[in-house]
Amino acid sequence: MPRAPRIASHLAAIPASVYSSLAERLGRFAGESYPLHVGDTWMEPAEGCRMEDLGVAEYPGMHRYASVHGMPALLDAIVERERAANGLSLERDDVLVAAGATGGLGAVAGAILEPGDEVLILAPYWPLIEGIVRSFHGTPVAVPVLAGEVDSAEAALAAVGRRRSARTVALYLSTPNNPSGRLLPRAWIEALVGWARRHDLWVITDEVYDGFVYEGEHVRALPLAPERTFLAQTFSKRYGMAGNRCGYIVGPRAVMGELRKVATHTFYSTPTAAQIAAVRAMAGPGDAWAAAACRQYADTGRRAAARLGLPAPAGSTFLFFDVAAALGADGLTGLLERAVERGLLVAPGPSFGPYPTHVRLCYTAVEPERALRGVEVLAGLLGR
Amino acid sequence: MPRAPRIASHLAAIPASVYSSLAERLGRFAGESYPLHVGDTWMEPAEGCRMEDLGVAEYPGMHRYASVHGMPALLDAIVERERAANGLSLERDDVLVAAGATGGLGAVAGAILEPGDEVLILAPYWPLIEGIVRSFHGTPVAVPVLAGEVDSAEAALAAVGRRRSARTVALYLSTPNNPSGRLLPRAWIEALVGWARRHDLWVITDEVYDGFVYEGEHVRALPLAPERTFLAQTFSKRYGMAGNRCGYIVGPRAVMGELRKVATHTFYSTPTAAQIAAVRAMAGPGDAWAAAACRQYADTGRRAAARLGLPAPAGSTFLFFDVAAALGADGLTGLLERAVERGLLVAPGPSFGPYPTHVRLCYTAVEPERALRGVEVLAGLLGR
Repeated sequence: MPRAPRIASHLAAIPASVYSSLAERLGRFAGESYPLHVGDTWMEPAEGCRMEDLGVAEYPGMHRYASVHGMPALLDAIVERERAANGLSLERDDVLVAAGATGGLGAVAGAILEPGDEVLILAPYWPLIEGIVRSFHGTPVAVPVLAGEVDSAEAALAAVGRRRSARTVALYLSTPNNPSGRLLPRAWIEALVGWARRHDLWVITDEVYDGFVYEGEHVRALPLAPERTFLAQTFSKRYGMAGNRCGYIVGPRAVMGELRKVATHTFYSTPTAAQIAAVRAMAGPGDAWAAAACRQYADTGRRAAARLGLPAPAGSTFLFFDVAAALGADGLTGLLERAVERGLLVAPGPSFGPYPTHVRLCYTAVEPERALRGVEVLAGLLGR
Repeated sequence: MPRAPRIASHLAAIPASVYSSLAERLGRFAGESYPLHVGDTWMEPAEGCRMEDLGVAEYPGMHRYASVHGMPALLDAIVERERAANGLSLERDDVLVAAGATGGLGAVAGAILEPGDEVLILAPYWPLIEGIVRSFHGTPVAVPVLAGEVDSAEAALAAVGRRRSARTVALYLSTPNNPSGRLLPRAWIEALVGWARRHDLWVITDEVYDGFVYEGEHVRALPLAPERTFLAQTFSKRYGMAGNRCGYIVGPRAVMGELRKVATHTFYSTPTAAQIAAVRAMAGPGDAWAAAACRQYADTGRRAAARLGLPAPAGSTFLFFDVAAALGADGLTGLLERAVERGLLVAPGPSFGPYPTHVRLCYTAVEPERALRGVEVLAGLLGR
């Protein structure tokens, strides 16, 4: 039998899932487990916005394709929301409904990247953005600024400036930040977006956790430079619908047609039922659900942080912190293995940038009291 | 306001949707309309397999992420089905559940293509495969053989041979064929797959219409060269769930990890509810639904073909034929515009390869009698 032909080389730099072997071990754990490694919610979506609420009597043909662009009713609801949030005169053509923010960001990467183009990524970062850039033959360049490396807008600017090259085409940021739980200060965002404009770079702003702000001001990047900014949003977090795979991109109209081309060829259309569920959530109980979730998440986050001796998170659903002091000769891997032996899974720092001794913990992945028991397990392992 | 930065050049070769302006005009048509341009079904999915049948009481957490790989229950059902169909000893790791066959084929393209690599595509072809290859920086190379250009396996072999270059990495075929409605004969498939093996090429076989075979034998490519073949499948067609966005790829285990990387970064996971619906269809009424749909589709296809003076289709849900004799000075565009003025939309031949005077018609997109009234409109325009 001949050898299979070769595979593409650019994927070699993307690690296979670092969780999968640990997650398998967790699946075999006999007692109560604490899968706090994935960003998800323990809450069911609001009543009226679940799959069971979407019938063919009310929505005939709801299992057929939706248009690649997105359903008109959903586009209109998104336009209305983003107009109000950003003070921009948006239209349907400024929006792409996508298979989650992930699908949308893939469409952005596919539309703007030539092979070898570089994207500056503020670190620590959402792990998938690195692989999204690589999947479309770009090169991610981490700029570590959000885990205490710098303490001013000027220093953040200097950090991106040092890493800009002739191949740099975009700057990616996320606020409220996954994984650090921080909000990017207004001065930082204004400085960074202005810098991107001066150097004619795209700005990609991932604000999928903007429903979960516990203290401080969430600053939107889109209105600062709408001619070059892609806003990534999703219904996954705000409405607890991650499995529905429905999010969207708002961006410069002139290039949205290019994003639609990539979307067409990577997921075709966003699930029709997911789009109907999003419309129902936006028009109905979604925001009340999100407000209740926000209070709940904030409380759990504060208690988890306090137990671990960390500052309370300002937003998102994560804690991200250095555990170097508690590591033995077997390093971070040893700690993660001891955690799994006790039913706890957290995400390793290197997934988020150059953080060999950090971990990320999602305190909303399971019910609050159970999450806090998982935090207790971790505190024990860390001697805190 | 400064200019937005540049976009990637490789997308320029992908046309924006050729339907969109015509579809908009059709949307404003006052009378009964015949949107026969998209491959879809007028039937609702089987009872018990609809979104309204999937409740959180039975499936707690069903709106959360599923694993990137696919839900274990669905992977197991796919493995069982494909083992039986192909006589191979498949395992879960040979399968990737994907956002439709489209998402799966994107993962294949992303995993095997370096920029500039060429994919030979038997034409006429499913339009999206061309853009999928381009989206991942590959070059599609059409090999026109299925619209009467060649009449033997040897001639088909010669056609692919003439177009192979040092950059060729894969051969794509679809059977039952979209758009031609033909089944590739066994002799062709065996010859083509053997040729791909001799030249160390990947084989990508798109068999999403295998539930709709009206006459002749559907020949599966996967068992002929499992070490190099990717089978693209979907629940969209067989179970009438195109809007759910759930399909899968079966391929060589050694490279499925690379496909999972691309999938992770283009759509993350396949919608959880869609996966549950697929499991229910496979374990329950899905195949009876497909059998009933097959009888219905065959009847409509035969009647549509007869009215247009065409041979009855052997499979899929399309007719594809040359209308050159009926074109005026305004060419195919003029015909499409006259059709839209009468409420009918069909797809233009150039979307499917080098077919400037063909059209494709999907006779399952609306109810049979309505589809046949649309066919009557077309027959009138063509003077048939």
